[in-house]
Amino acid sequence: MSAPTIEFWFDFGSPYSYLSAMRIEAEAGRAGVAVHWKPFLLGPVFQALGWSTSPLVLQKEKGEYAWKDMQRQCRKYGLRWKQPTGFPRAAVPPTRVALSNAEQPWVGEFCRRVMQLNFADDRDIDSAEVVLEVLRGMGLPAQQLWEEAQSEEWRGRLRAQTAAARWLGIFGAPTFFVRREMFWGNDRLDDALGFCRAQA
Amino acid sequence: MSAPTIEFWFDFGSPYSYLSAMRIEAEAGRAGVAVHWKPFLLGPVFQALGWSTSPLVLQKEKGEYAWKDMQRQCRKYGLRWKQPTGFPRAAVPPTRVALSNAEQPWVGEFCRRVMQLNFADDRDIDSAEVVLEVLRGMGLPAQQLWEEAQSEEWRGRLRAQTAAARWLGIFGAPTFFVRREMFWGNDRLDDALGFCRAQA
Repeated sequence: MSAPTIEFWFDFGSPYSYLSAMRIEAEAGRAGVAVHWKPFLLGPVFQALGWSTSPLVLQKEKGEYAWKDMQRQCRKYGLRWKQPTGFPRAAVPPTRVALSNAEQPWVGEFCRRVMQLNFADDRDIDSAEVVLEVLRGMGLPAQQLWEEAQSEEWRGRLRAQTAAARWLGIFGAPTFFVRREMFWGNDRLDDALGFCRAQA
Repeated sequence: MSAPTIEFWFDFGSPYSYLSAMRIEAEAGRAGVAVHWKPFLLGPVFQALGWSTSPLVLQKEKGEYAWKDMQRQCRKYGLRWKQPTGFPRAAVPPTRVALSNAEQPWVGEFCRRVMQLNFADDRDIDSAEVVLEVLRGMGLPAQQLWEEAQSEEWRGRLRAQTAAARWLGIFGAPTFFVRREMFWGNDRLDDALGFCRAQA
């Protein structure tokens, strides 16, 4: 029998995706669950829902609260945190690399490093340079991986991934799927893993 | 020294307020924290934010998800659940009674009974009859309590309570306050109680 799996749909610009990205591999490991990393672009999903940008920008009160909440959540999980001076940050190059390497054993580490640049170091992450820097830091063939990721094939696959997110009914990130069951938000990761184990 | 306290701001029509109403007294008790019940009307708050109704109605995808999520959350907490055929339900009479009796030791039980009518029995709760039924079921002087609650004084105080919710920056329910620190959503009740104890 294969291990039960959880799909982790996330966007590199999403603060609550940061919380999940940093802990999902460890928590899923403890639960005996395999993680499928599903990077996608939340922007086009929001636009399809009629929102010009993140609800945390559109809804001022909720947005202000979210920054306080993120600070507290990071303290709770023991994560570094620095409120990004740009929000929401676009992150097309790292998303392409994460997608084209989603089956690699190092994809989790790559995603965590990109997330930390955005949410702990307040770095712009929407560039090839950042991607190359992260890949090199991991001792990987950075230039080769980057060239593959920006090929026409992977551009198309990222569009398809984002279309799939819409088709699945995703309206925010992170979103977890266990089979066809959807769980929205970092606060539901534990429930999703519990559901996953109950199905095994 | 007085016990640390948590303010519980809620609306009888809010599903996630149901989850918190059913468990807050027991959980706060275990944490040695006193609960201040703060019933208010979420509708005027939403309108002030530019929303004509609940975000769960305005945002179809999120609303559909919320009903599935509520079903799972109720199972998790061991609560009865039946999706209300009317949503969001107005609940002015019970809100007035909860407000005018917020200092009574039985206010929690009253609120839980009204919540269960809405979210477990699918009953309309926007009437004097329902209020009288609940109060009588608790062996209280129903008619007298109801007359006091619908007095001009308490009508005014409910308007003031809802204005206070706006002034505090509340944008949804349930919302918890520990001193000036705000926590939004049933998912933050445990964090709020933890914060409360850390301040004691």
